[in-house]
Amino acid sequence: MPPKIIQTRSSSPWKRRVGACIAKCTVTAGWRTKVCRNVNMEKLQNDYLFPEITTRRFEHIQKYPDAKLISLGIGDTTQPIPNIVTSAMAEYLLKVYKPCFSLWNVKIDSPLNIQKLHKRLNVVLYFQRLVNPYDGLQYSLALSTIEGYSGYGAEQGQQALRKAISETIYRDLGIKDTEIFVSDGAQSDIARLQMLLGSNVTVALQDPTFPAYIDTSVIMGQAGDFQEDSDKYGNIEYMKCSPANFFFPDLSTISRTDIIFLCSPNNPTGYAVSREQLKELVEFAKENGSIIIYDSSYSAYISDDSPRSIFEIPGAREVAIEISSFSKFAGFTGVRLGWTVVPEELLYSNGYPVVKDFNRIVCTCFNGASNIAQAGGLACLSSEGLTAIHGVVNFYKENAEIIAETFSSLGLEVYGGKNSPYTWVHFPGQKSWDVFNEILEKTHIITVPGRGFGPAGEGFIRVGAFGHRDSILEASRRLKNHLR
Amino acid sequence: MPPKIIQTRSSSPWKRRVGACIAKCTVTAGWRTKVCRNVNMEKLQNDYLFPEITTRRFEHIQKYPDAKLISLGIGDTTQPIPNIVTSAMAEYLLKVYKPCFSLWNVKIDSPLNIQKLHKRLNVVLYFQRLVNPYDGLQYSLALSTIEGYSGYGAEQGQQALRKAISETIYRDLGIKDTEIFVSDGAQSDIARLQMLLGSNVTVALQDPTFPAYIDTSVIMGQAGDFQEDSDKYGNIEYMKCSPANFFFPDLSTISRTDIIFLCSPNNPTGYAVSREQLKELVEFAKENGSIIIYDSSYSAYISDDSPRSIFEIPGAREVAIEISSFSKFAGFTGVRLGWTVVPEELLYSNGYPVVKDFNRIVCTCFNGASNIAQAGGLACLSSEGLTAIHGVVNFYKENAEIIAETFSSLGLEVYGGKNSPYTWVHFPGQKSWDVFNEILEKTHIITVPGRGFGPAGEGFIRVGAFGHRDSILEASRRLKNHLR
Repeated sequence: MPPKIIQTRSSSPWKRRVGACIAKCTVTAGWRTKVCRNVNMEKLQNDYLFPEITTRRFEHIQKYPDAKLISLGIGDTTQPIPNIVTSAMAEYLLKVYKPCFSLWNVKIDSPLNIQKLHKRLNVVLYFQRLVNPYDGLQYSLALSTIEGYSGYGAEQGQQALRKAISETIYRDLGIKDTEIFVSDGAQSDIARLQMLLGSNVTVALQDPTFPAYIDTSVIMGQAGDFQEDSDKYGNIEYMKCSPANFFFPDLSTISRTDIIFLCSPNNPTGYAVSREQLKELVEFAKENGSIIIYDSSYSAYISDDSPRSIFEIPGAREVAIEISSFSKFAGFTGVRLGWTVVPEELLYSNGYPVVKDFNRIVCTCFNGASNIAQAGGLACLSSEGLTAIHGVVNFYKENAEIIAETFSSLGLEVYGGKNSPYTWVHFPGQKSWDVFNEILEKTHIITVPGRGFGPAGEGFIRVGAFGHRDSILEASRRLKNHLR
Repeated sequence: MPPKIIQTRSSSPWKRRVGACIAKCTVTAGWRTKVCRNVNMEKLQNDYLFPEITTRRFEHIQKYPDAKLISLGIGDTTQPIPNIVTSAMAEYLLKVYKPCFSLWNVKIDSPLNIQKLHKRLNVVLYFQRLVNPYDGLQYSLALSTIEGYSGYGAEQGQQALRKAISETIYRDLGIKDTEIFVSDGAQSDIARLQMLLGSNVTVALQDPTFPAYIDTSVIMGQAGDFQEDSDKYGNIEYMKCSPANFFFPDLSTISRTDIIFLCSPNNPTGYAVSREQLKELVEFAKENGSIIIYDSSYSAYISDDSPRSIFEIPGAREVAIEISSFSKFAGFTGVRLGWTVVPEELLYSNGYPVVKDFNRIVCTCFNGASNIAQAGGLACLSSEGLTAIHGVVNFYKENAEIIAETFSSLGLEVYGGKNSPYTWVHFPGQKSWDVFNEILEKTHIITVPGRGFGPAGEGFIRVGAFGHRDSILEASRRLKNHLR
């Protein structure tokens, strides 16, 4: 029998926040172990952002059951994965011998093309049957055959995929395949990097930024106590990124830390650091003996000359780790695939190579990404695959342009949206939760309050471009009509 | 330019071990950051087992280039994944409309059946073409269509899969789907559970057992210093499991710890704890207020009345977490899928439910298992899927029987091999690395020295049953001929 959930009172700082009593105050009656709750878990603050959005969404639907809600909130992709990529994964499972398989490369994303595929397939089948009645289609389930089966792969990823990442993503940058570790996504590797670093490192991060960096810092015990007055953790160096400093911190005001997290293009501000700024940061890390953990998950959205990888900057191999992902690059949010680069030249103060410890972490705490996902990743990096997935990225970028233009036309200051799927809209003097509510109430559109990404996100909202085109256009119409 | 690797001298305890200078003494010349290496990473000892086996294997091949090496070493599966499971994953990617798709369920694991499939397929195609020339095969790439695409899933796993695990694996045990967290495999969840627990818990584990428990304890700083004299970490409670205690620790001699790791059937001993023993352990945990982390990854291999889940024991919901995997159950070592059960009744000493913190860890440090792997997992748990994967498990169990009988016939004491794919063979008075060498030299068969799983593994070797039948039979012949 599960015991009754009892809501108790608590004086912890989260209670000041928007939203009703969440996890923290839940204590369950019943027999208790003598195991103390991890004090670091107790310090975690803000798991309220997306649950709170879900709650408000639910309340909104109750209030307006007929409203056609549009979500520009969560950063999830919506466009289909190109055929060439899913075909490669299907082929990994279900092998159709070459004569027929080549047919699948026909683009069938429109009804017309499906017809074309059937026509061509039937023609081929007809001629093949003339030659051999049983040779029309040769199926074998690859992972279901002794020859096609494969079990554990290398924890670090398939050699072919590591090589393909090295040769396409890092072409001319001299990243060796042995420095690339294939993962099940950037988020998992952020946690694994934190396990690698341990609890004694000091950390700096952008304010605002993706919450996984700070949350994993808190979980590992690096963050110190949460300060109610500043809404910050005591031991974290917050690098404020706002329009006032063009979203790049004034490094002369930043204290030395062991680790500097930098996400570029940044989630949520959509700002990609320039080559000059990144040079400055690498120089800063070099002076301080710091390690930069550079998250390039959104680099495919960069249109201008901003660096796509930190390894474009001379000297970065001695101070930087790069994490990245197929999620926003190829719509692999559900398929799960990413990678991390740890250069051989990156050394701890005692001269021990970081890459050797990361290899040990990957072998101990992970067992490799799904072999099916890796087959898909490999297809993404073929020249045909790259063309197809860039098509999808460009589609989202057009969405972002529509969104940015919409808010601009309302007289608002708009950031991001150029090198990023995210548009960061400024409502000076307003609380971001109030703006969220106003937009929801007037237009039935879900956004994300900037406050959820750090104290400096107050007064902003993040608007995502991962929608179908008709939703984006409809959202634009509603915003223009009702938000003036 | 990568700097030169310099091998320096070191006095750390690993040097006493078998094998030449490994990672620990590698210091690279070059510019260094000021970031201190995590002291816990420095304490890790035994990443030498499988690399050392690889080295010896390589040397053996150099010495005997014509020898036909058989590996009964690493615990990797070799049998194909049943059609019904790969079909489900392929269907997730590549949807063939129902009339044709049903054909794929024909078993095509033999050439005869492939012929049969083609015959039936051609017949259907013929009649379909009479009705509609373009309706013969209707393909659409599911993940490549707007309707079929899905992005981020719930971090905790797809609702349908959580439900299926609850209803098939835990039928009648009252495990709710909300208590089940789908993972990318047990190894990743061991690391995530360690992040959950933090560095201040005390830990007990079987000696010998799967190295990931102790290695993650070391990484999190729970293990204390390595003691050269005992070959043990100072703060870990080693629960010796040997023939003398029938592989179950005498709990009256075990100190209270916060956490007790128990793997049953155990890797490497192959021993499954009995119902009475597991009751005793749950009682022990209850008395001490400890949490048991029970690893049931090999439970599908249990033939007798031994419990397949700790939740078969009354009271376990208040003291236990269970981790498990599709790897050895369905040959998913490369596909990557597992799960962890955290019951609502499991409470920290302050009354806070462990499940809420684990949910937070899963949402922060993980982003869900691959949706394709989850489609496969769901197919495994259909009644047809269960029948097919039990067929594969039974095949490995027959292999294990052949192996156990072989070593028995040589007059050796043999353990495991009944409820497990692993046979644990005793060579009293001998060093397990010497036994490994002797077997390799005389029979060209790779095994695993028991010492690699803990001090109490000395004098044993682990022999795996994940081979093709002809290899197993050939290994048996060689052992019988050359090891007398």
